[in-house]
Amino acid sequence: MTEDYFSNRVSIRTYKDTKIPYELIESIIEKAMHAPTCGNMQLYSVIVTQEQDMKMQLAQYHYNQPAATGCDVILTICADFNLFTRWCNISNANPGYDNFHSFIMAMTDAIIFAQQIVTIAEKEGLGTCYLGTVNYNAKEIADLLELPEKVVPVAALSLGYPDEIPCKSDRLPVKAIVHKEKYRKDSDQDIKAFFTTKENLPENINFVKINNKQSLAQIFTDIRYPKETNEKISDSFKSLIINKGFRF
Amino acid sequence: MTEDYFSNRVSIRTYKDTKIPYELIESIIEKAMHAPTCGNMQLYSVIVTQEQDMKMQLAQYHYNQPAATGCDVILTICADFNLFTRWCNISNANPGYDNFHSFIMAMTDAIIFAQQIVTIAEKEGLGTCYLGTVNYNAKEIADLLELPEKVVPVAALSLGYPDEIPCKSDRLPVKAIVHKEKYRKDSDQDIKAFFTTKENLPENINFVKINNKQSLAQIFTDIRYPKETNEKISDSFKSLIINKGFRF
Repeated sequence: MTEDYFSNRVSIRTYKDTKIPYELIESIIEKAMHAPTCGNMQLYSVIVTQEQDMKMQLAQYHYNQPAATGCDVILTICADFNLFTRWCNISNANPGYDNFHSFIMAMTDAIIFAQQIVTIAEKEGLGTCYLGTVNYNAKEIADLLELPEKVVPVAALSLGYPDEIPCKSDRLPVKAIVHKEKYRKDSDQDIKAFFTTKENLPENINFVKINNKQSLAQIFTDIRYPKETNEKISDSFKSLIINKGFRF
Repeated sequence: MTEDYFSNRVSIRTYKDTKIPYELIESIIEKAMHAPTCGNMQLYSVIVTQEQDMKMQLAQYHYNQPAATGCDVILTICADFNLFTRWCNISNANPGYDNFHSFIMAMTDAIIFAQQIVTIAEKEGLGTCYLGTVNYNAKEIADLLELPEKVVPVAALSLGYPDEIPCKSDRLPVKAIVHKEKYRKDSDQDIKAFFTTKENLPENINFVKINNKQSLAQIFTDIRYPKETNEKISDSFKSLIINKGFRF
């Protein structure tokens, strides 16, 4: 891991046909388990999908995106209060973890754990990519992986040996993200300035043009993350959380 | 960052009186911004609390735990759809991000970003600790930091130069966390076995004894994370999310 690894890392969506030894996957997961966790409860679990048939079934729910169909392994990382609750139940203790806050605690634990897996896997020379679609078909994914009560998938990662050298993605200026002491009150002009570099990237200008849009923001609101889709996923994901035993 | 950094890292709660140069904090944040982010939207922000008076006010809401009062800097990391929504609004685009799924997207982005900050800060020789209390008094924290609409605090980190060498925390066996292809159906005996080492640690045996409890699990259910507290936080955190403009 070189000095400037963190500034230069990129997600990888195209992978070689090489198998990842299962022992390496497990060793990455074991190391990642030393990431911080709420009260040392480790409120997460991970389902390793490496068998070809299961991978193709799972990839469907990720819309068969190439990162999912072409990777060697998909890791589905879950907010998991099942294990802890079962331990309480067999220990004469009365668990009170069937609520929204407990879901949020477990989700926080699971995402910290997922990101630690990403860093360690990349250090081992693997390429990784979050499959943001995990929330879209969370119920179908939960059914396929036979997730029990109090287990909700919150992150999915594709893993494989990189077969591309993608360009580094642009990022907003740090000033747009950092606030000193209190949240800064930016003007519309300030906001516009934060996004100018992004708007002027040749690929983004081209996106806007070929989609017949007036602005880059419209690419997000009309095509990539439209209101109707967000509301549909809100309903289905909320239903799954409730069905898995976290009351709202 | 040595080979076995990931297996040996620990959270630090006791810090030296040394200031962290602001430039170092900003450079850590800037590097962490290259962590993966949903659709490259960077749905997060961070409020840097370093002024003594603000730090002590903020520490109150973290129950004046020593990691909060004794650190040099508290970072409050927020799920932030404010910046992106404002950009949409000034770009003739119609944002549809006032829903539960959009909150979950932004929270995921924010926690990935927080954990990247942890790893980079530790690499720089700083000690870090998540303040899990961020959800407990999220409304009070949001008011103090003047968080606007669509900005919800989801992680808090204390940062400082380490003034302790804590013992490494125990973790469950990796088998308890990893499932191959489908979620494994463990027996009660399997679950008991996963927790045996933890239950038999001298400090845990002592905790149970001095608190007059029958099992370590009861320490969690009766003292550390009891049902009533979880339900109270569920209500207040949910209210804040809704008040900040994410419909449920």
